Amino acid sequence: MRATVIQGPHDIRVEEVPDAAIRRPTDAVVRTVLACICGSDLWAYRGVAKREPGQRIGHEFLGVVEEVGAEVTGFRPGDLVVAPFVWSDGVCEFCAEGLYTSCPHGGFWGTPGSDGGQGEAVRVPFADGTLVQLPKEAAGDPQLLTGLLALSDVMSTGHHAALAAGVRPGATVAVVGDGAVGLCGVLAAQRLGAGRIIALGRHQARTAIAQKFGATDIVAARGEEAVEAVRALTGGVGAHAVLEAVGTEESMRTAVSITRDGGAVGYVGVPHGGSAGVDIGQMFDRNISLRGGVAPARAYIPELLADVLSGRIDPAPVFDATVDLDGVPGGYLAMDERTALKVKITF
Amino acid sequence: MRATVIQGPHDIRVEEVPDAAIRRPTDAVVRTVLACICGSDLWAYRGVAKREPGQRIGHEFLGVVEEVGAEVTGFRPGDLVVAPFVWSDGVCEFCAEGLYTSCPHGGFWGTPGSDGGQGEAVRVPFADGTLVQLPKEAAGDPQLLTGLLALSDVMSTGHHAALAAGVRPGATVAVVGDGAVGLCGVLAAQRLGAGRIIALGRHQARTAIAQKFGATDIVAARGEEAVEAVRALTGGVGAHAVLEAVGTEESMRTAVSITRDGGAVGYVGVPHGGSAGVDIGQMFDRNISLRGGVAPARAYIPELLADVLSGRIDPAPVFDATVDLDGVPGGYLAMDERTALKVKITF
Repeated sequence: MRATVIQGPHDIRVEEVPDAAIRRPTDAVVRTVLACICGSDLWAYRGVAKREPGQRIGHEFLGVVEEVGAEVTGFRPGDLVVAPFVWSDGVCEFCAEGLYTSCPHGGFWGTPGSDGGQGEAVRVPFADGTLVQLPKEAAGDPQLLTGLLALSDVMSTGHHAALAAGVRPGATVAVVGDGAVGLCGVLAAQRLGAGRIIALGRHQARTAIAQKFGATDIVAARGEEAVEAVRALTGGVGAHAVLEAVGTEESMRTAVSITRDGGAVGYVGVPHGGSAGVDIGQMFDRNISLRGGVAPARAYIPELLADVLSGRIDPAPVFDATVDLDGVPGGYLAMDERTALKVKITF
Repeated sequence: MRATVIQGPHDIRVEEVPDAAIRRPTDAVVRTVLACICGSDLWAYRGVAKREPGQRIGHEFLGVVEEVGAEVTGFRPGDLVVAPFVWSDGVCEFCAEGLYTSCPHGGFWGTPGSDGGQGEAVRVPFADGTLVQLPKEAAGDPQLLTGLLALSDVMSTGHHAALAAGVRPGATVAVVGDGAVGLCGVLAAQRLGAGRIIALGRHQARTAIAQKFGATDIVAARGEEAVEAVRALTGGVGAHAVLEAVGTEESMRTAVSITRDGGAVGYVGVPHGGSAGVDIGQMFDRNISLRGGVAPARAYIPELLADVLSGRIDPAPVFDATVDLDGVPGGYLAMDERTALKVKITF
């Protein structure tokens, strides 16, 4: 089969690789229907996150079950499924609590020895604990299918940020980061009943999506200027709940600075470098909380799925470009140069 | 009247100062009955936290109302009261939420222009929003009164740490720091129903109090060794709720390291220096939360008071030495040299 591999920084290729195949009785093989490129894939692309030459890449996909191992009971060939960006056994104490990302048998698509999501098929370990069933009818509705693809990571991650930040009905929310996760954070905050949603972003095409997703105010500034703008919008006190969806020192500092005393920063931006701007002295007097981390998407997909199916939320607009498998290297380039927000891959 | 002042590092004196007096109609004057020295006072004593020469010091006291301003409605001369370590107006949006420490009209005892707690009397701004009534009978019970004094700061702060760390019935809790706040954190965790309480501390007199307060395990180690010991005690996974009651980089690193995935560090140790050991990268993959800060003691005193009065909790053992006002400089020395855990001041 063919799949995307990363040979080195800025060197993404589509190559012939061994066919995805059942290795353990709890595996399934999923034939990919849709996949996509993640902002976090760019850290590998840029060489910031190290990868072995030839390692697979991609961790967001949905598709059709092609084959299942002898112990898989929840899925059959022909089922339409979506995968969260981490696989998990579904039965350990962490999975039982919904913290699937801490499953001791879990793993991340594309790590050495596993298939990546940006390929024609994927071997899924612990299929029963990992995959989520989609209604077969969705296969005929490209817009719906695109929205469902977002559950694999960005919509679930935006939801995690919103929960971690403590978004409640009526709350004033601020979202730092206008990438796909930040935008999904806006949508998640709106879904949770936020009274006001301030989106920080300077790219008009993106802030337009933020407004479509429920942002009531746009702050097109960074750093101190952004902090002052959010304070001005909130009577000087800041936002109850702040979603941090970037992961740099500056974004974290901004996030803490615009949080109202007693409020929380929900951090989901993959951190790059040390304390990433967390100044505990800045948080202490104001009782600011910091919550979040890697999103246990598997825990959230069922409830978010119901809302995508009902039309209550539609994260599909975060995908603004589409490529086929051969177009994946170009998709990386487009996202790296910020000419595309998030690239969908069709098979 | 006479009160404690700090003239410089390691220079604590008891001097004649202007009498505490009503300045605003919302003030009260409280004649001090008991006060004490706080671990956080030592940061000023050691010159780490800057103070103006001659500034008052001390922020924990209880006493008898001597005089009230014209607008004070909740207290009368003769009332026995305890003060939280921060005054607050009691009516702003933050006070209404219980976050008294963020009151825009609030302040900390001993800041320039205010009285400190370690003096014969204290002018209390916003008496109605600040003070909490104690039963008059308590005045005749020295042990009870000592326990009630702890509500002013350390018991309330320990409770804040326990709440912030998310202590729940049955939870495995770890407490970093064997000072008075850490010990009160043990007591607070026990009160909230923790199933297991691991206290980290190397001073036997202190860990003995921790055991009295409900600690089930003692780890007499620091750094990596402590981390390994706690992991060994918790099946390798760490504690659900970790109370950080020191405020150094090492203690924060230890606290994060011994937190179970998905758990929280409740931080109440006054942070000294930058990010104070918070490595967001260490927290991200494990979904560790960081919550806490300066404790809104005023919010907690009523419920904790009820439990001290009923005998359900008794924080008095954290006081292991007593001085009179003239003995205060010696009390600082004893705490600085760690020959005393927490010094009570009688008037």
